[in-house]
Amino acid sequence: MTIKDKNIDELNEICVDIRKKILETVSKNGGHLSSTLGVVELIVAMHYVFDAENDPFIFDVSHQAYAHKLLTDRWDSFETLRQFGGISGYTKPSESNYDYFVAGHSSTSISLAVGAAKAIKLKNEDRLPIAFIGDGSMSAGMVYEAMNELGDIKLPAVIILNDNEMSIAKPIGAISNYLSQVMAGRFYQKMKTKTAQVLEHFPEGATYIAKRFDESLKLITPGLLFEELGLEYIGPTNGHDIEALIESFTIAKNMKRPVIIHTQTTKGKGYEIAEGYFEHWHGVSKFDIDTGEALTKNGAKNATKMFGESLLELALEKENIVGVTAAMPSGTGIKMLMEALPERFWDVAIAEQHAVTSMCAMAKEGFKPFIAIYSTFLQRAYDQVIHDACIMDLPVVFAIDRAGIVGEDGETHQGTFDISFLRAIPNMTLFAPRDEKSMKEAIAFAYEMKSPCSFRYPRGAFLSCEHESKPLELGKSQLLKDGESDILLIGYGNGVGRACETSKLLDIDVAILDLIFVKPLDINKLQELSNRYKKWYIFSDSSKMGGVGSAIQELGIENIEITTFEYEDQFTVHGNTKLVEESMGLLPEQLAQKISKTI
Amino acid sequence: MTIKDKNIDELNEICVDIRKKILETVSKNGGHLSSTLGVVELIVAMHYVFDAENDPFIFDVSHQAYAHKLLTDRWDSFETLRQFGGISGYTKPSESNYDYFVAGHSSTSISLAVGAAKAIKLKNEDRLPIAFIGDGSMSAGMVYEAMNELGDIKLPAVIILNDNEMSIAKPIGAISNYLSQVMAGRFYQKMKTKTAQVLEHFPEGATYIAKRFDESLKLITPGLLFEELGLEYIGPTNGHDIEALIESFTIAKNMKRPVIIHTQTTKGKGYEIAEGYFEHWHGVSKFDIDTGEALTKNGAKNATKMFGESLLELALEKENIVGVTAAMPSGTGIKMLMEALPERFWDVAIAEQHAVTSMCAMAKEGFKPFIAIYSTFLQRAYDQVIHDACIMDLPVVFAIDRAGIVGEDGETHQGTFDISFLRAIPNMTLFAPRDEKSMKEAIAFAYEMKSPCSFRYPRGAFLSCEHESKPLELGKSQLLKDGESDILLIGYGNGVGRACETSKLLDIDVAILDLIFVKPLDINKLQELSNRYKKWYIFSDSSKMGGVGSAIQELGIENIEITTFEYEDQFTVHGNTKLVEESMGLLPEQLAQKISKTI
Repeated sequence: MTIKDKNIDELNEICVDIRKKILETVSKNGGHLSSTLGVVELIVAMHYVFDAENDPFIFDVSHQAYAHKLLTDRWDSFETLRQFGGISGYTKPSESNYDYFVAGHSSTSISLAVGAAKAIKLKNEDRLPIAFIGDGSMSAGMVYEAMNELGDIKLPAVIILNDNEMSIAKPIGAISNYLSQVMAGRFYQKMKTKTAQVLEHFPEGATYIAKRFDESLKLITPGLLFEELGLEYIGPTNGHDIEALIESFTIAKNMKRPVIIHTQTTKGKGYEIAEGYFEHWHGVSKFDIDTGEALTKNGAKNATKMFGESLLELALEKENIVGVTAAMPSGTGIKMLMEALPERFWDVAIAEQHAVTSMCAMAKEGFKPFIAIYSTFLQRAYDQVIHDACIMDLPVVFAIDRAGIVGEDGETHQGTFDISFLRAIPNMTLFAPRDEKSMKEAIAFAYEMKSPCSFRYPRGAFLSCEHESKPLELGKSQLLKDGESDILLIGYGNGVGRACETSKLLDIDVAILDLIFVKPLDINKLQELSNRYKKWYIFSDSSKMGGVGSAIQELGIENIEITTFEYEDQFTVHGNTKLVEESMGLLPEQLAQKISKTI
Repeated sequence: MTIKDKNIDELNEICVDIRKKILETVSKNGGHLSSTLGVVELIVAMHYVFDAENDPFIFDVSHQAYAHKLLTDRWDSFETLRQFGGISGYTKPSESNYDYFVAGHSSTSISLAVGAAKAIKLKNEDRLPIAFIGDGSMSAGMVYEAMNELGDIKLPAVIILNDNEMSIAKPIGAISNYLSQVMAGRFYQKMKTKTAQVLEHFPEGATYIAKRFDESLKLITPGLLFEELGLEYIGPTNGHDIEALIESFTIAKNMKRPVIIHTQTTKGKGYEIAEGYFEHWHGVSKFDIDTGEALTKNGAKNATKMFGESLLELALEKENIVGVTAAMPSGTGIKMLMEALPERFWDVAIAEQHAVTSMCAMAKEGFKPFIAIYSTFLQRAYDQVIHDACIMDLPVVFAIDRAGIVGEDGETHQGTFDISFLRAIPNMTLFAPRDEKSMKEAIAFAYEMKSPCSFRYPRGAFLSCEHESKPLELGKSQLLKDGESDILLIGYGNGVGRACETSKLLDIDVAILDLIFVKPLDINKLQELSNRYKKWYIFSDSSKMGGVGSAIQELGIENIEITTFEYEDQFTVHGNTKLVEESMGLLPEQLAQKISKTI
């Protein structure tokens, strides 16, 4: 859609249409709502002033980029948003040339802008990288690493800071407080008028003092932090005023230096029910537009809730339990603990590295920290797990949510690698619950561990398995049933339910083992079982490379044949989890067929 | 050593003794020099004012903490510094209760201080966390994540910022520039005098303006950045003036809020030859105290030099090659490229996440980035490798230096995990050169790759292998020699030399395969070899869990017996590499014995 020839009124109409389309689609498909609604004018003005064909448009996290998708040839296909085979909820170059980069994890945009700016300079091109970033992404350290270089090399780049004081949950941290001081900005104009008068009264040396005084004026604008990092600052600008935005963007475009434009928007803008609310409207399932009521029925209890409730129960009893989330209080279930025990549970904003290391110090001080984190985000604190938790051999617990396929969020959010990257770390113990009772057991077990440990569980509900779980014992598996055939199904975590469901679809009687621990492995039990069962099938929601099957193969047990039903070596696409699993041949009925063919 | 009862003169004498001891020891054992010499007064004052028995003393990186070791019961044992079985070059709680935490990687100290501060508050204790951090560590984003929370929760904590304008190499980035502006501080006093005069002339509303004006004065001190993040600021203080330091520290101690004390020190202070120099004196091998000349003979050419020279040769020819180091220009060999091609090679300071992601954008723009990084530091950019390089499937090259055992730096620096954590990532190709010629081939091959790839090489020289290497072909191994027995030695990277050396010590004739690629594996060749050779021994400088042996075992090739000579599942201690390897039974003569026993 070309919008460069439109006038302000027409642009505002386009915004109305875009909001309507977003609201209609998200209410049907689910998706990110409040942030996308809040930035419609910003993105329209961006497309008006900058050159979407040539300038790298770099959306941080990119969950807010729906308007950009609608403006770039995806109006019709937008109806397939986040559906299997449909368009992604994030920017994706394979979907459109207008999408510069994949995103999904926060705080990468300024680094990308720096790289693009260097490239543009080397190629001597007349293009301008535009990073679009929300205030919530400003807490992650990577942003400062990037600003540190950008403020030094001073290559042209525009950073649009969308300040909706939202983050994902509520705003946290000094930066957030700092941005909120923007209200002081109204003094700026008043002061400017007074300056002229004041300066008349200055003694000699006035030029120097005048310059300093001018800087003192800036103090009451929120730009100083950025200016001290070597970036020009424009703002704050009303993020819903297209005309003002066009003016700011045009100034920035002509500056030929790195500049940050601070804009203020209202979350959920244009959909009254969502305006002004926090976390609930960030990402939603389908809902009734008129009432705002969710349309999806609550199914089986999800693992996150089991985790939160069980941990709360234990934390009320054990006073040394503390915990943290990095900006995912509801997503990880830590919210209910923060509410019940606000002195002992923290949301440290998007800051996974800091979350892990600060909790390591608490462990050193005798506390028992539970770090509740999505599998995919734990990747962001890998060195901290090694360097601060495991070399120190501290009793830190990693409660890994969203392990396995996460559904509609897709490639960037899949929780598939954690076993591979954690298992290699000395001193780390890895295990997994398979249902509500074993989740409770897992938490109780983790509490007693004197060294680092991690347990993982899926997004949503566990697959069902009727066998009763027992209290955990380090490195001990549980044989759920014997089998008459020579076939053994080995499940890990949610894979146990998958193994159970698969077993019911087989014509023969098979044994089922809940591995429980992938590190340390129950070597004795596995050796023993190898005498009786010769064909082993591994079920785990994890990558094949370095996964559960790999761990068992490392044992080199003789005379058995191992097949592992884990994820192949490719990134997993977005869509309904069941459809995605079906495309990978991982539904119980498909697995049963595969097994049947080999016997 | 109790120093709390000493007077200033006595404290200064202690500093003299400490410097002498450090210089004597480091000149014999090698170690970190210029930073340790520079902070002697700082650490003495720290021990004088704060309570080493109770207050957490948290040294960032902790290579500068020698004076702390000497003050805490390690005066005699200091002679074993960095030697096998001797005391560590870093803080290490297992060595002394005075060492609060392990460190070795930078920028964790403020996060640890935040965790300790939370713990102290919960336990209602009268202790104060002290983080000691150099300006070089301030570029890593994690520091901002921690300050963001600390400035918000405002728990008592002291951050001693040791500003020697050094980093490890030369100072880089906006923060570094910012700290350098400290010279402007001398205006501060002058301005203060003038303020009184000026304020008389102010119109009404003077109180408000006066307050703002006072803030404008702060502008010319370097504290504003920190104050805007919610921390109190004291400084700059002369870091070699014990009396001034004691005064600053005492003020900070009584503030009961988070405070940053900015001190300025001279690198190498007290050893004239090292004062004022940059990278060379950061970490040294043994040297002659009188002349400053290195005493270690240069042995075989090291892999880093091979990398730098070969890459330079190719980069002179291929204009789209660019590259980056995160604060290790000499260590990675990127320095010679920065000097020859300053427009295309960058040191982005300690900022691994930003280094990787910014280079991904350059790859998107058609450049061919080489990211030269130590194995252990790549852990700090794990998510960026997945999210920005591999999901995007960009032709980024990771040149992984210090793969395997690194010697005297010990646990925190071992390059043992890279294969385990990288192999699980889709789209990633992994390979390794084994000598100078294959290093050249590896670089040439990497240049042609259209997707992400990594190659690893050891610290120091490759183990020798006389077989000639060939140009690389994706996923193809090279059979170096056939054998008459049924034994096959499989080497990867530096493991090939180890396999060759081992083979010469065996009584029987064995085959040797250079695997070259651990991803993708040369499945056909391995299958073929399994027909002829039944006992396979894997040689690789990497962790067993998820390492090269594991990758081969995943193939499930039948009727072979695999033994892997990789590292067991434990952190590897510090000391001379050969001694460390001997303790692990990994010297060729030990390996030959092990093989002999099994045949």
